Formats: sequence, C-alpha cells, structure tokens
Amino acid sequence: MTFRYSLMTHKREELIDILSYVEESIQKSNIDDGIVVLFVPHTTAAVTINENADPSVREDIIQFLSEKIPRSRNYSHLEGNADSHIKSSLISPSLSLILENGKLILGTWQTVYFYEFDGPRNRTFFVKIISS
Amino acid sequence: MTFRYSLMTHKREELIDILSYVEESIQKSNIDDGIVVLFVPHTTAAVTINENADPSVREDIIQFLSEKIPRSRNYSHLEGNADSHIKSSLISPSLSLILENGKLILGTWQTVYFYEFDGPRNRTFFVKIISS
Amino acid sequence: MTFRYSLMTHKREELIDILSYVEESIQKSNIDDGIVVLFVPHTTAAVTINENADPSVREDIIQFLSEKIPRSRNYSHLEGNADSHIKSSLISPSLSLILENGKLILGTWQTVYFYEFDGPRNRTFFVKIISS
Repeated sequence: MTFRYSLMTHKREELIDILSYVEESIQKSNIDDGIVVLFVPHTTAAVTINENADPSVREDIIQFLSEKIPRSRNYSHLEGNADSHIKSSLISPSLSLILENGKLILGTWQTVYFYEFDGPRNRTFFVKIISS
Repeated sequence: MTFRYSLMTHKREELIDILSYVEESIQKSNIDDGIVVLFVPHTTAAVTINENADPSVREDIIQFLSEKIPRSRNYSHLEGNADSHIKSSLISPSLSLILENGKLILGTWQTVYFYEFDGPRNRTFFVKIISS
Repeated sequence: MTFRYSLMTHKREELIDILSYVEESIQKSNIDDGIVVLFVPHTTAAVTINENADPSVREDIIQFLSEKIPRSRNYSHLEGNADSHIKSSLISPSLSLILENGKLILGTWQTVYFYEFDGPRNRTFFVKIISS
C-alpha cells in the first residue's frame, strides 16, 4: 500500500516531524511486519531521522549544513537553490524503516523528519509498506 | 528479481542517468506494486536522485563535493582515491524507490544517477524489485 | 524476520565491521532472495558500506568527518555531541541490501560498518529480511 501526504513548509530550511503520518499509514495498511519506505519526490528536500526531544539538535543540523553548503556561491545553476540540490543528495530523499509486531522500530530518541531545503513550499511525500 | 547492469564511466567524477535501466528492469519484472532497491557494488561510487533537467545542477554537485573533499590531502590511504571512498559513504551505494501501478514514483524533476567518484572505469549496479 | 544485535563500541568514533552479523541473520532466516534492511536505533550512530581491506580507508573517513564536523563549535545542543547528530543524518541510520541465491550482493571490496559517532557505548542494530 502506498500513502501520499502533503505538507506546507514555512521556512527556507526546516525539519518537520512526520512520524505521525508514517504511523497513520502503518495503521491503515493493517500490515504488522515488514518494511516501510519513505520517498520525497522533490530535488530540494529529503527525509532523515534524528533526535525528537531537544529542538537544539534540529537547529544545529540546519545551521551547520547551511553554513558549509552556502546559498550564495559561484554555482552554475542560476535558480538560487544549488545548495538545496546538493543537500538533497547528501541527506537522501529515500529512507527505509523496519516494521515489527505492528510497530515501527525506532530508538527512544528518534523521530522521522521531512527536511526542507528550499521552502516555504507545498510538499509531498510517499509512504510504502511491504509485508514480510 | 534481480537485474545486473554494466556501464562505462568516462571521467573521474560523473553523474550518469540510469533511470532507463531501472525502468527496463521494472518492465521485465512484471511487478506492478512494490519497492525497488538499487545497489552499487563499488566503494568509490554511489547512487543518488537529483534534477533531470538543467545539467548545471550535476556540475554544481560534482564541483562542490570535489572542492570540499579534495583528492589530494594528508590521507592515510595511498591509492589516491581516499576522497572517493569518503564520498561513497556520504552519498550511499544503496537507494530504495517505490513502485506503484507499474510506475516508479518520481517527482517531475527527479531522475536516478549512478555517481562515479574514481573513474573512468567499467562499473556495475543491481536493481532488485520486490512485490508488495 | 527481524534480528536484533548488540555491540560494544570502544572509541568515540569508530567503524565496526558487522557483516558477520548480517550474514548470520540471513542464514537463520532461511530466505534466499529478497532484501535486507539494516537499522540503527540511535541518533548518534549510523550504518555504511565501504572498503573491507585497507584499514587506512576507515581512518581517512573518520578523520575527515571529524575534522569537517568538529566536536567543539558554537552548537546550540549542549550535550557535547551535536557533531554526532549531524554525522548520523549525513551517513544515515538505515541501509538496504540485496539478497540473491542465499547470498548478499556485495562487491569484492565492500563490507558493512556500524558507524559510532559518540562512543564508547553499548549499541544495538536491527536486521530485517524480506523475501521476494
């Protein structure tokens, strides 16, 4: 089963917790054991896993990447978002998770983030669940 | 079903569009719904998704990574390709995609690239398709 | 089938070969064809593939990342491991592999590493095998 979700991002760079969407799709799928593939159909966004508690971790990730991969530079791509494309390939628009006994395997401090690199925009992501 | 493809790269660093190979393997598999895992069996190459239209995006990605992860540096590995190994772990030799109604889920501007970090060489990659 | 493994890391940053665990789980699963998803339930560790032979490649990867993503910096996160969180998102806590004819598809020089960014610690990872 494939689930499609839309979300609105609010800043140029932002980490948005999408775990509740992933859990909703698992519940609707009625699949208890298998794998979950998340996919972002954009070239200036990605999906990642990181700390769910202290928001300073999100700030540090965003700040570090935007400093090291600056928006303005002698890029060839003239749309002003070459940095966003580079970040998308580094973080990856795809992520695979494990589903066991009806629950996603995640560490205590982990959550799933949609990573916006060139917002604000209307964005989409897909959740595919495969039974084992 | 597992499909194996060979390709020849022509530069030391290069992004080669391999979407037609992936689509061919989907067609041959007769699988309509599931997931597609791409895997590169090399430690100095990777697979990624990015913009299919403006070639300047490819140039910017290659140029940025090669500047930030230089070929010559005080590396321990003496084969002259430590940079390629680092890039391979950062981009990843594995990528999972979603297959639905006989079609790969990809955004309008997305395509799939084989990323060569230490060419030119003869290279290989695998496509595995799992039915849901 | 899902397999859970524990390991003890011995340094702050370390690449630990976990291929034997993955192969053990494949053998126990009795699955011959499919995909294997590795998942690390920690926000300061990851899983990657790289060279299995010359240990200098591991040293270069660790040294390069720790120099470019330094431990001490003006981070917001005050636990002293913001660098580890950033590295975890860049390398990824998830990896998908292909299983064919009872064997993992891996290149001659490839092995699978658990990448510790904030050790030494007791760590865990999961191996999920899906039949095709």
